[in-house]
Amino acid sequence: MSSPATATGFPVVDPSVHAAWLPDAALAPLGSRRVAVVVPDGGAPDVVAQTVRDEVAAATAAHGGAVVDPQQAGTADVVLAVRASTGAPAGAPAGSAAADPEAFTLTRALGMVTVTATTSHGLLHGLFHLVRLGEHAFTDPDGTWTHAPTTALRMLDHWDNVAVHPVMGQVERGYSGGSIFYDDGQVRADLTRVAQYSRLLAASGINRVAINNVNVGPRESLLLTDDLDEVARIAAAFRPYGIRTHLSVSWASPVRLGGLTTSDPLDEDVRAWWRAAADRVWATIPDFGGFVVKADSEGQPGPFAYGRSHADGANMLAAAVAPHGGLVHWRAFVYDHTQDWRDRKTDRARAAYDHFAPHDGEFADNVIVQIKHGPLDFQVREAVSPAIAALPRTRLAAEFQVTTEYLGHQKHAVYLGRMWSELLRFPYWGEGSATMADVAAGRHPESDGTGGDGTRAGGFAAVSNVGDDVFWTGHPFAQANLYAWGRLTWDPTLDPIGILDEWVSLTFPGADPRVRETVHAVLDESWETYERYTAPLGVCFMVKPHTHYGPDPDGYEYSPWGTYHFADRDGVGVDRTRATGTGFTGQYPAPWRDVYESLETVPDELLLFFHHVPYGHVLRSGKTVIQHVYDTHFEGLERVHAAVEAWQAAADAFPPDVAERVTERFAEQVRSATDWRDVVNTYFFRKSGIPDAAGRTIY
Amino acid sequence: MSSPATATGFPVVDPSVHAAWLPDAALAPLGSRRVAVVVPDGGAPDVVAQTVRDEVAAATAAHGGAVVDPQQAGTADVVLAVRASTGAPAGAPAGSAAADPEAFTLTRALGMVTVTATTSHGLLHGLFHLVRLGEHAFTDPDGTWTHAPTTALRMLDHWDNVAVHPVMGQVERGYSGGSIFYDDGQVRADLTRVAQYSRLLAASGINRVAINNVNVGPRESLLLTDDLDEVARIAAAFRPYGIRTHLSVSWASPVRLGGLTTSDPLDEDVRAWWRAAADRVWATIPDFGGFVVKADSEGQPGPFAYGRSHADGANMLAAAVAPHGGLVHWRAFVYDHTQDWRDRKTDRARAAYDHFAPHDGEFADNVIVQIKHGPLDFQVREAVSPAIAALPRTRLAAEFQVTTEYLGHQKHAVYLGRMWSELLRFPYWGEGSATMADVAAGRHPESDGTGGDGTRAGGFAAVSNVGDDVFWTGHPFAQANLYAWGRLTWDPTLDPIGILDEWVSLTFPGADPRVRETVHAVLDESWETYERYTAPLGVCFMVKPHTHYGPDPDGYEYSPWGTYHFADRDGVGVDRTRATGTGFTGQYPAPWRDVYESLETVPDELLLFFHHVPYGHVLRSGKTVIQHVYDTHFEGLERVHAAVEAWQAAADAFPPDVAERVTERFAEQVRSATDWRDVVNTYFFRKSGIPDAAGRTIY
Repeated sequence: MSSPATATGFPVVDPSVHAAWLPDAALAPLGSRRVAVVVPDGGAPDVVAQTVRDEVAAATAAHGGAVVDPQQAGTADVVLAVRASTGAPAGAPAGSAAADPEAFTLTRALGMVTVTATTSHGLLHGLFHLVRLGEHAFTDPDGTWTHAPTTALRMLDHWDNVAVHPVMGQVERGYSGGSIFYDDGQVRADLTRVAQYSRLLAASGINRVAINNVNVGPRESLLLTDDLDEVARIAAAFRPYGIRTHLSVSWASPVRLGGLTTSDPLDEDVRAWWRAAADRVWATIPDFGGFVVKADSEGQPGPFAYGRSHADGANMLAAAVAPHGGLVHWRAFVYDHTQDWRDRKTDRARAAYDHFAPHDGEFADNVIVQIKHGPLDFQVREAVSPAIAALPRTRLAAEFQVTTEYLGHQKHAVYLGRMWSELLRFPYWGEGSATMADVAAGRHPESDGTGGDGTRAGGFAAVSNVGDDVFWTGHPFAQANLYAWGRLTWDPTLDPIGILDEWVSLTFPGADPRVRETVHAVLDESWETYERYTAPLGVCFMVKPHTHYGPDPDGYEYSPWGTYHFADRDGVGVDRTRATGTGFTGQYPAPWRDVYESLETVPDELLLFFHHVPYGHVLRSGKTVIQHVYDTHFEGLERVHAAVEAWQAAADAFPPDVAERVTERFAEQVRSATDWRDVVNTYFFRKSGIPDAAGRTIY
Repeated sequence: MSSPATATGFPVVDPSVHAAWLPDAALAPLGSRRVAVVVPDGGAPDVVAQTVRDEVAAATAAHGGAVVDPQQAGTADVVLAVRASTGAPAGAPAGSAAADPEAFTLTRALGMVTVTATTSHGLLHGLFHLVRLGEHAFTDPDGTWTHAPTTALRMLDHWDNVAVHPVMGQVERGYSGGSIFYDDGQVRADLTRVAQYSRLLAASGINRVAINNVNVGPRESLLLTDDLDEVARIAAAFRPYGIRTHLSVSWASPVRLGGLTTSDPLDEDVRAWWRAAADRVWATIPDFGGFVVKADSEGQPGPFAYGRSHADGANMLAAAVAPHGGLVHWRAFVYDHTQDWRDRKTDRARAAYDHFAPHDGEFADNVIVQIKHGPLDFQVREAVSPAIAALPRTRLAAEFQVTTEYLGHQKHAVYLGRMWSELLRFPYWGEGSATMADVAAGRHPESDGTGGDGTRAGGFAAVSNVGDDVFWTGHPFAQANLYAWGRLTWDPTLDPIGILDEWVSLTFPGADPRVRETVHAVLDESWETYERYTAPLGVCFMVKPHTHYGPDPDGYEYSPWGTYHFADRDGVGVDRTRATGTGFTGQYPAPWRDVYESLETVPDELLLFFHHVPYGHVLRSGKTVIQHVYDTHFEGLERVHAAVEAWQAAADAFPPDVAERVTERFAEQVRSATDWRDVVNTYFFRKSGIPDAAGRTIY
């Protein structure tokens, strides 16, 4: 059953597309109640408030409840209200959760459930919170709870191209079909999918989306100028769900689009060009979010060409967008991608720190330096980025990747919630200290006075995994990654398995209990499973060049990309110590600079990220490195087989379309994981000559 | 100075394109004489005879000679004449050189040079022979010489796509720009380049060209039907120089184009469809050559899908084209391209023999089975294909590759004449026995009665290296490969260095002597140089997957393509022996089956093609395998540097446009060869742990 149309046509739901975590039935507990929406009419039309009304109207119409007139709110089962102050304990201080414009307070008392917020945006989040709670929203014990996001900046970046790129296709690193925004050179006429997507995102916690690839081609550049009306159409599709639109822009735009001869950030014509460009953007889209910039990175143009720093570059753009309240997300993914593999002194892992730490404090207040969670590139296991700890006077966003570029292309069932949670909780200054999430939320312990309250937060950004696939994400279970990303941006302390559980409840409401059991059996430890059968012990890469799918241990070993493992007949790993290696360990604050430096204390799973060791080196686990490689690779595939068995035993409990797609994906995962097992084991056996202690088959 | 236009507009010469081996000055010795062309008017217009007249008219007009009326031929310096019998010694038997319709006889006597032939095609070859001889044609001692091609089938295959292929581009494995035939989905309106090309080919000896890629896409399929008039335009551009046009066709054409539900070769509707298709082709192009087919090969459709043999498939097509005197070139490049790398029993090298030898004698008389010179794929060094010796009752073409897919992409200066010569002269049954060239020319020693006189020749085919580049071939020196290929198809016993010398004389007439010295210094042993810095000792591949440019020792090691080297910490190479390996050596006739089988007798340069040996194995040269790898790789790069030095010392003696391009190419060759040296040395050092005896730098 699809939702009936409301007065405004919202919520937009195309029943031919998978409903993800918002199937009609997920709204039944709310929709079967009598619900009042109380939003003071402040004069200006409030599209988000209207969305709350529309959602309630649609849900109650579909599930037998009723919309209660605000005047009669006292008779309702549920009241959703925007109030000048929420129902939180009186006297909540400024900067507290209750003061956050997206916060909401849930009160359950005297048989009535009340959700209050100071803005319609907060109310919308409260509405979806009720949906997540399901019947529990009405049946759990009475009480009052206030929820506020850990940061106001919770973003998804799309690497969608407008024109199909001859090498990277419609969506760079996209594994879910085409783009929901673009089709073969144009913004889609029909943006229904974008509207549906905005609803899913709002229900997960996301509130900003960058709609085009950070590698900005000639066609994509035009979004900033000629196609601004088309961008406005996309922004209009996102706006009802409280999501703001950002654009990736080319550093070379003044030359490419403006006919200038330079993009020098200190050139007055360049500055004027960007100011005028920003003025046009905000004149067209008043709630536009800002610009995302990949500069001097992997061949993209940037300020280096003019002898200017990244601070010079970012601040020039920041000045152009500041009058409009705009942001500049400036990516720190700057490294030498034409490195000489012979040169063991240059270490790509050092690059973000080396490029950006010297400029801490130089960036404008509306610049957010966006740093990948690890120093390399979204590997299954790599160290955390030391650069994130090294910029106390800079607004920082931590960048993640929901699309599984290095994690199985949404052909393998890999749930990333546990991985992200571990990273977000990483205590940069030792046990109990501020975490990666804290720093991204503006709470760096060495921050200057303005940062302690989170106002200098940079937040979280991640590359989306969504395309025009009927399941949105290729593998239906990869929806859980998108959902989990949204939830963790709202609250990085959430239990990732609990998030997965939420996702099951929402996506498969009322299903056979085997569905929940099977999702947990397949996904809970799937990250560790994937790690087991791919690159071992934090050694990274070992993927096929270009596609990044499937094993090729030496694929990047003699390349210019700076991602080497130095395996030889005696040992493997990268010496990043201060004592004998690249000195990368010195970029970490204590205690990690010493923990990672020492073979005695480095965690096993990161051993080869920090050290080059003989194959016979004994891990803290008691195993040798080589036997660990063999054991984990055999075990990794066995775990895949176990997942397949669990799946097969319960596939009939899933909706047939989901079952069919998941079954198809598992066939490929088994094939690919078998290849990984055998290639990696064979590679290391041929190198080391050390047989498997258990005598299993290695080729 | 460009040639003045003649009455018919031939020869077509665009002065903005490099003249290759037919610059105006190359025609000066002939053009400065008084020349009579005597061709009896047989009633039908003879475009090739007209070409001879036009060439003479243009050359004499440009260089101060004169055209002498045939009636006054006795007063001319040079007489070019078609006669019922040539000036060869009386009583030349049928089947002798003089009876070949393309043969010609040169007589120099009493101050007059006479070239006679029985056909205008022979006369055209004689004309270009005079051009090649230059002043020697007139000043050498008197005498009579008859020249005839070793086979009537001297072909170039173009892997040009009509539509730009999303992965392979306009020309598959093309390194010379776009296609001279097609541009972005259409046959070019202006075929001037094709006309120029036909002249160059005729002057080298080629007489047949297949104009489209053997991987026939949907757009390319239409050449056979909808675009036949366009094909006819191309054929018309080739015809004046005696070159016949062939098409690559898709086995699936009856389904793709004919709307049939099958391509089963025994289906009567399929047979009728092909007959009708052939009828249309020859009705449009009466001298059309025939079809080239890549079937059941690397994903192309073929008769296997219907449980039919390659003989069934080829003979069905042969029946369709036979009424028109057409040929079917059926490629033997059939192997399992989805092989499991774990499976050491399957050996791709065996595939052509295993697939085709059992069908010897089954192929129709107008089927030519086209077999690559080696069992793998145009490697810098691989064994000769045993399949070529295994089909005595089949017409065989030996297939070569002028475009340098695995030999440096026409960025490296690599002259292939020596390599081809060595292959063509390979004595399949031991010293002094019939060679690869003999077999291709129809002189297999075990052939049935019809073959001994060469009438069952299959001839020679090679993939062209020409594109719309201003130098035709990317690297100007790669023109020499195209020229040498044509010359060797005419006479495989020619000295390849002599051919190179001819090429210099023609291409750079009257140049500073340093030009000749430098070309020899750079190219004479360039094949061996390239071998030294790339994959060693016949181990093959070790190239980057897909592009096939640059080193990646393990690039294909764990792939489905069947091209492995099995390097481990102890040794390297493929055991293809009968005793312990894949048995491939048993596909050769004696003595090679034993020569290759034994470590005592296998030639060093093919050691790793036939045997897996420890790194310490001592070659017949006295060196260990590992030291040989190091030495050759250091030496290979040193040889490149020496070539660059030779080049730099004489670059000013070359035309400036040539000098600029060659200088640019050398920069890339040095970069790439350095990478090859270091990657291969490092790869083997890391595997073996054995240091270089000379202590040179390995990374």
